[in-house]
Amino acid sequence: MRLLAALVLTATFAAGASAQEALWGKAPVISPEINSDGTVSFRIDAPKATEVKLTGDFLPVKKIDTPQGSIAVRPPAELQRSSDGVWEYTTPQPLSPELYSYSFIVDSMRTLDLANVYISRDVSTVNNIFLIPGERASLYAVHDVPHGNVSKVWYHSDGLGTDRRMTVYTPPGYNGSDRRYPVLYLLHGMGGDENAWSELGRAAYILDNLIAAGKAEPMIVVMPNGNVSQTAAPGETADGFVPATLKRPKTMEGTFETYFPEIVAYVDSTYRTVAEKHGRAIAGLSMGGFHSLHISKQYPDMFDYIGLFSAAIDHYTEHSEIYDDFEGKLDRQFEAVPALYWIGIGKTDFLYPSNEKFRRHLDSKGHKYTYYENEDGHIWRNWRIYLTEFVPLLFR
Amino acid sequence: MRLLAALVLTATFAAGASAQEALWGKAPVISPEINSDGTVSFRIDAPKATEVKLTGDFLPVKKIDTPQGSIAVRPPAELQRSSDGVWEYTTPQPLSPELYSYSFIVDSMRTLDLANVYISRDVSTVNNIFLIPGERASLYAVHDVPHGNVSKVWYHSDGLGTDRRMTVYTPPGYNGSDRRYPVLYLLHGMGGDENAWSELGRAAYILDNLIAAGKAEPMIVVMPNGNVSQTAAPGETADGFVPATLKRPKTMEGTFETYFPEIVAYVDSTYRTVAEKHGRAIAGLSMGGFHSLHISKQYPDMFDYIGLFSAAIDHYTEHSEIYDDFEGKLDRQFEAVPALYWIGIGKTDFLYPSNEKFRRHLDSKGHKYTYYENEDGHIWRNWRIYLTEFVPLLFR
Repeated sequence: MRLLAALVLTATFAAGASAQEALWGKAPVISPEINSDGTVSFRIDAPKATEVKLTGDFLPVKKIDTPQGSIAVRPPAELQRSSDGVWEYTTPQPLSPELYSYSFIVDSMRTLDLANVYISRDVSTVNNIFLIPGERASLYAVHDVPHGNVSKVWYHSDGLGTDRRMTVYTPPGYNGSDRRYPVLYLLHGMGGDENAWSELGRAAYILDNLIAAGKAEPMIVVMPNGNVSQTAAPGETADGFVPATLKRPKTMEGTFETYFPEIVAYVDSTYRTVAEKHGRAIAGLSMGGFHSLHISKQYPDMFDYIGLFSAAIDHYTEHSEIYDDFEGKLDRQFEAVPALYWIGIGKTDFLYPSNEKFRRHLDSKGHKYTYYENEDGHIWRNWRIYLTEFVPLLFR
Repeated sequence: MRLLAALVLTATFAAGASAQEALWGKAPVISPEINSDGTVSFRIDAPKATEVKLTGDFLPVKKIDTPQGSIAVRPPAELQRSSDGVWEYTTPQPLSPELYSYSFIVDSMRTLDLANVYISRDVSTVNNIFLIPGERASLYAVHDVPHGNVSKVWYHSDGLGTDRRMTVYTPPGYNGSDRRYPVLYLLHGMGGDENAWSELGRAAYILDNLIAAGKAEPMIVVMPNGNVSQTAAPGETADGFVPATLKRPKTMEGTFETYFPEIVAYVDSTYRTVAEKHGRAIAGLSMGGFHSLHISKQYPDMFDYIGLFSAAIDHYTEHSEIYDDFEGKLDRQFEAVPALYWIGIGKTDFLYPSNEKFRRHLDSKGHKYTYYENEDGHIWRNWRIYLTEFVPLLFR
């Protein structure tokens, strides 16, 4: 078949140097490979390397001492070179079901696994990803179930004087019905953006799977951009292909919270929503948990369901009227008794102490909340877990 | 600010081995850097490497002889090592405005530039990308203009018995108006999927910018998946994170064309469309040009605007009724005189001869078409150019 051969050649040569290899070289390596016994093999073709390591969030944890104190790290694993120059590492044990990320270190240089086209960006770091399905992690996989749609939507903020981008999930069946749906507003953390929950958080897959299993109500999920200094994710603004950075101005100083009702008004006027308190939830991770806490108490008639995932509680960076009268606003919010006030945190999270203090305050006031504590710290693995725990409790 | 410091540490440690570097090592390199004179510098920190090269679609072309005949390639450029182990290459000349892609080759191993988080996948190859704005390439950049929304939409195909995914661009102003819009159906090539035109083709940015400049009518753009053997792009199906491949079954054998009216029916019933022939265009690249040619002549009352971009014309892989009576169907299509029949191809495209033959046939029959010929071959750079030429001619 001449055409296909020509197309293959064209595509291969477009990739430049790898063309020679593809034409006359050895077969491309398979990596990662999930073996039948549940172990995973990683391979990279680096014939001239003298040392190849693997870093990944599935490797064993070790405590190390740093000038900043003791920190848990996962030391890289060493790959072994075979005679054909392909390096390989196989995990000693089967990996538990989870979405994992990894990269290689070839002669001290970090590199991605280019045999694996699945790459995700977390703030300014790109990693390869792979999924071991099973148990809870099956919720992160794509299944043959009805899928919701995921849209990148621009709305206008009068308060910020600009158009801004959000991600909107509409549940299966939204198109082609007249039904109204409740809305979960789902907020990202510092350094994140409107892509974080759909990409790293697997939110659309989690919603699809929970809805298909009858474990969650069909709902709209709105994932706005919580950085008022940016209109959209890196690369999606007139700034061009700028480096992604964690440090941004104006993250936890009241502006996002002040103009949040604009987002709700836009969503209620654009989508078929249940435009009432009992049809709205708000949740977020880290900075987004901070935003959810302060937005929900600032506008106590807006949200009936609140989720704080590893929330930064009261770590504002500048004073704002939003943060004044913390206890009084919280009292008024709880006077109406929220349908759900949910707090989730990992035992080793650096925000554990401030969450503990917040819970003590809620306890002292008799404010009722649901508490979920688990292992690990301030990581996406936990935020996916919290989402799968939180969503089934909404709008029931 | 303790919280931010902790968040930075957390994010850094999540990346594993790069943590040590970030804490105590040298500053991260800047790459690529567009210099004030228009040249571009590429850098990579590879202290133990003995040879570092750069491959990219902006490097000079050279003809090489292969067993398959003479092929134009772009030999890699060599980077120079500085005393701190950072390797660097600066283009000798300023680069023309364009969206470029590149990767490094470190000691014979291909690697991405991890200082640049902008990565795109073309079939099974990932590359870093960067954009030199200016001239036509300004249409590929994000500007402060009203933006359309881009959605990943699932529709049901009765013919294929499954849900399938498409990308839908709705123009600025679509939400919040009652206006009906014409629709461009935009089809990808072999190995591509429903993400190709929006990611590699920069279709949404091109539409935003042309509409904002008054050079294109506001329109909906529907980018379906043209591989009937897959429901969605790699990673978006129940197959899991499978390798992306160019070779798929059932690509140019009539099935996609047969069930294309389902897509049009879904779009007309879901969006506010001008649901008539004069409100519909169809265009595609390579295999998508083949699909556009055969769909538009099979259903001569469906599309008034047809665009063949480097089209594979008559390279079907299996017989189908769709391909029968080629000349007769074409005659009937042209009897009604399409508002636009547009053909674009590059001079070095391997499909140039079959396009030339097709044009001779159209000429012999007196079928009118618009022809656009330019440099280069079967590459995304050309397909972006063709889109910017084609879209302003639609629905006027």
